[in-house]
Amino acid sequence: MKHILFYAHMALLFLLSACSGNKNSGEPSSQSYGSPKAIVSSQPDSAIHSKGPLAFGPDVPQLRDGDTIDVKFDVTHELFQVARAVSFVAWMYGGSVPGPVLHVKVGQTIRFSMTDRSNDTMKNMTLQMNMMPMPHSIDFHAAMVNPEDKYRSINPGETIQFIWTANYPGVFMYHCGTPMVLMHMIYGMVGMVIVEPKEGYPGKADREFAIVQNEFYLKKQGDVYIPDTSIARLKQPSFVTFNGKVGQYVINPLKVKAGERIRLYLLNAGPNNATSFHVIGTILDKVWLDGNPKNELVGLQSVFLGPASGAVIEFVIPEKGRYTFVDHSFADADMGAMGTLVAE
Amino acid sequence: MKHILFYAHMALLFLLSACSGNKNSGEPSSQSYGSPKAIVSSQPDSAIHSKGPLAFGPDVPQLRDGDTIDVKFDVTHELFQVARAVSFVAWMYGGSVPGPVLHVKVGQTIRFSMTDRSNDTMKNMTLQMNMMPMPHSIDFHAAMVNPEDKYRSINPGETIQFIWTANYPGVFMYHCGTPMVLMHMIYGMVGMVIVEPKEGYPGKADREFAIVQNEFYLKKQGDVYIPDTSIARLKQPSFVTFNGKVGQYVINPLKVKAGERIRLYLLNAGPNNATSFHVIGTILDKVWLDGNPKNELVGLQSVFLGPASGAVIEFVIPEKGRYTFVDHSFADADMGAMGTLVAE
Amino acid sequence: MKHILFYAHMALLFLLSACSGNKNSGEPSSQSYGSPKAIVSSQPDSAIHSKGPLAFGPDVPQLRDGDTIDVKFDVTHELFQVARAVSFVAWMYGGSVPGPVLHVKVGQTIRFSMTDRSNDTMKNMTLQMNMMPMPHSIDFHAAMVNPEDKYRSINPGETIQFIWTANYPGVFMYHCGTPMVLMHMIYGMVGMVIVEPKEGYPGKADREFAIVQNEFYLKKQGDVYIPDTSIARLKQPSFVTFNGKVGQYVINPLKVKAGERIRLYLLNAGPNNATSFHVIGTILDKVWLDGNPKNELVGLQSVFLGPASGAVIEFVIPEKGRYTFVDHSFADADMGAMGTLVAE
Repeated sequence: MKHILFYAHMALLFLLSACSGNKNSGEPSSQSYGSPKAIVSSQPDSAIHSKGPLAFGPDVPQLRDGDTIDVKFDVTHELFQVARAVSFVAWMYGGSVPGPVLHVKVGQTIRFSMTDRSNDTMKNMTLQMNMMPMPHSIDFHAAMVNPEDKYRSINPGETIQFIWTANYPGVFMYHCGTPMVLMHMIYGMVGMVIVEPKEGYPGKADREFAIVQNEFYLKKQGDVYIPDTSIARLKQPSFVTFNGKVGQYVINPLKVKAGERIRLYLLNAGPNNATSFHVIGTILDKVWLDGNPKNELVGLQSVFLGPASGAVIEFVIPEKGRYTFVDHSFADADMGAMGTLVAE
Repeated sequence: MKHILFYAHMALLFLLSACSGNKNSGEPSSQSYGSPKAIVSSQPDSAIHSKGPLAFGPDVPQLRDGDTIDVKFDVTHELFQVARAVSFVAWMYGGSVPGPVLHVKVGQTIRFSMTDRSNDTMKNMTLQMNMMPMPHSIDFHAAMVNPEDKYRSINPGETIQFIWTANYPGVFMYHCGTPMVLMHMIYGMVGMVIVEPKEGYPGKADREFAIVQNEFYLKKQGDVYIPDTSIARLKQPSFVTFNGKVGQYVINPLKVKAGERIRLYLLNAGPNNATSFHVIGTILDKVWLDGNPKNELVGLQSVFLGPASGAVIEFVIPEKGRYTFVDHSFADADMGAMGTLVAE
Repeated sequence: MKHILFYAHMALLFLLSACSGNKNSGEPSSQSYGSPKAIVSSQPDSAIHSKGPLAFGPDVPQLRDGDTIDVKFDVTHELFQVARAVSFVAWMYGGSVPGPVLHVKVGQTIRFSMTDRSNDTMKNMTLQMNMMPMPHSIDFHAAMVNPEDKYRSINPGETIQFIWTANYPGVFMYHCGTPMVLMHMIYGMVGMVIVEPKEGYPGKADREFAIVQNEFYLKKQGDVYIPDTSIARLKQPSFVTFNGKVGQYVINPLKVKAGERIRLYLLNAGPNNATSFHVIGTILDKVWLDGNPKNELVGLQSVFLGPASGAVIEFVIPEKGRYTFVDHSFADADMGAMGTLVAE
């Protein structure tokens, strides 16, 4: 019953959602500012843990049709392996680090729901301080809404629901905004939203991948590791990864073909350092900074992205072979930010 | 008498100031290169400590009409509080860290005067090593003049006067150029010049703010702190601030209104690190790198600026609420680079 | 006889080299992808150590006419002085750190040859661990070829030959790609390739310089220094230089004239940190990111380049004087990234 009321409320709020024009903007089309108040309910939506146009990188999820897209993923605390013999209890969106890639279009409204299941998951594991249930939240860089309302923290067992509309195309970050934010990010609570232009990204790519780069700051504590904010404040990571695991695409390369045009959706989730992303053996034909085709650079040997910045990158695989992509701030490559494209 | 001669000299030099066309330039209009030799006089202009289109951030000073603008601010050594219970003897332009914002237009000529009052101020305080009177200077990134002449160091009690013309629109840094420069900057000698295009910045903003980000490198020494260049060389700041004080706009938020278009004049004064400037809850509609409208990026989640770089940033406040702006290199936010816009 | 066969093979491979069109590219003209397999021969080409359109920075080598350009430089291990009383055994391309600047045009095919002479050079010096002969390789960021083939490591005494075609204009890096790559780079194996657009860079400059910025990570070991990758992983350099030597252009300034338009080919070879390149006393009139005129920014006070990024920079010398150029991440200037232009 509570649920029915809840969704009725959401439907009403959605109808009330304001849509206002925007003279003077970098985007000529009308934009949607703000949204109805978020709703926090005291119970998890236990039937569903995940829905919507989601996938885990390097996969790019399929877009869905429609003006409104239902999206849900939950927060859990689970053991996560970042490198061989290096595991820690991560705080996760959608059961992974980074969280799932969300793929929508400009103009689509996202009806988002998230349950903090940090209490559930703890039951299954030995109690450790960093596994204690705790409040979490989510901040979508792709949204234009009041953070005090939509990005507020919910308690373990609670569910937050709010809507937002994608105004700008781009490759955007989402992350936990619960203080202290730096800690929540180094525990793994980061992910990517791809917002396509209404008419889709210009041009055609033969193959697409989604790559999130992020830093881990770990110290050893008994048998496992634990993220350490004091190391994070020095900005000297223990590991830097593509999609959360050291060298995973060196071990299992991404498969491409000679002559193909590859499109990468790249997000530097930081939380602290820049990336100088480079693909050995080719040149970045086009780069759209923060994923907006109006911010086009061409013919780059590397793209330099600050933390909390994204890009769409296109390049051609010149011939059969092995093409390693790295953060060419080479200490980062050395710490794990390295992967391979194998072209047959 | 000396003063009358001095000003007569300045007037003459000003008339002689060369104005040369510039084929092949990024700026089509004619530019002014160089200026008459700076004049150093052995006495302070004690009547006036400050004049010109100046204000302290977050305020943006009013432009003044006229081809020539008189500007003066002095150097003092004074105790400055950067955070609660954290004070140090700073070297200041115009009695503050950062120094005052100067606001002029392309084509305007600045008749600048500065007295090194590091000897005056010291008299009022307990003698400490870092309060000793000493030579200082000023380097305007907005000017195109011989640094050996105009940016030269003057001794305590002396006054330097020189003129320069604003050729390029932008958000530029000024800072002390007296060796060792890194030390003078971490003691607080940095500030912002806004140069508007001749016809003003395109478009209209509802509200404007000036924000300087800079790093402090402090170690404790008895009851006060003291800047330490050895820490600065490691690029690991103790504090990172907006307009010189940790979290000041969290305590006293900047007031805006829902739906307003905000224009920020942002300068990263460094001296060492980049900023990944982000406003939680909105998207940067337009970004003009180094404040030049020709360098436009749109729809950014964050703008990544190196040290000694600026930007004009515009964004819309989507609805009522609290919008926190941060350096999203999140260790920096943690060290103080955080402020709030409250929208009624 | 072996040599004749070798060159016959190269000629044949060159004729077979594919040239394929590229719809959808940032570059409208046809591009050349891949090239025939590299050839590794077991003997050095002892007659010739260096040929092609090469020069050591700050000099910019003359372009050569023709569709195919022969280029050769070798690898040696030699003592290199980075600052007064600071020498280490460097691994060098063309006998210098950084290696020689190579200057070609879009559409030109480079027939490249390199001998690993790390065994030769060692004979002349006291044996030290870091002088041991060892495999090396070269990775051209300006090329679009299979790295597994062309950038493979060769043994001491061996020669590698391969061809590649310049598809994009720019200021590109080359470096050793032999694991561990970070180590080979901090030993000095970095350099610049300038690729001019087919029709040359637009506009005219009065004077040109080539500047490579790179970091050294050294620890003292007896009488000499030795690069240390553990320091490099912390990204805290001992020295940062322009063209390999601390402050060399402060001691011997680059000579220019008042009113001249200067064009700098700037490469940040890293391997780790960004540069915020600034010329005191002037403004960067035009900046082409990664050296591509399509990536134009204007009126910058500084250009912020990640590691493995380049730029073409143009600015005017406003009047007679001394103009110091720095990495305005000022700790880097303090560590050596400082030089002077003297204008008569």
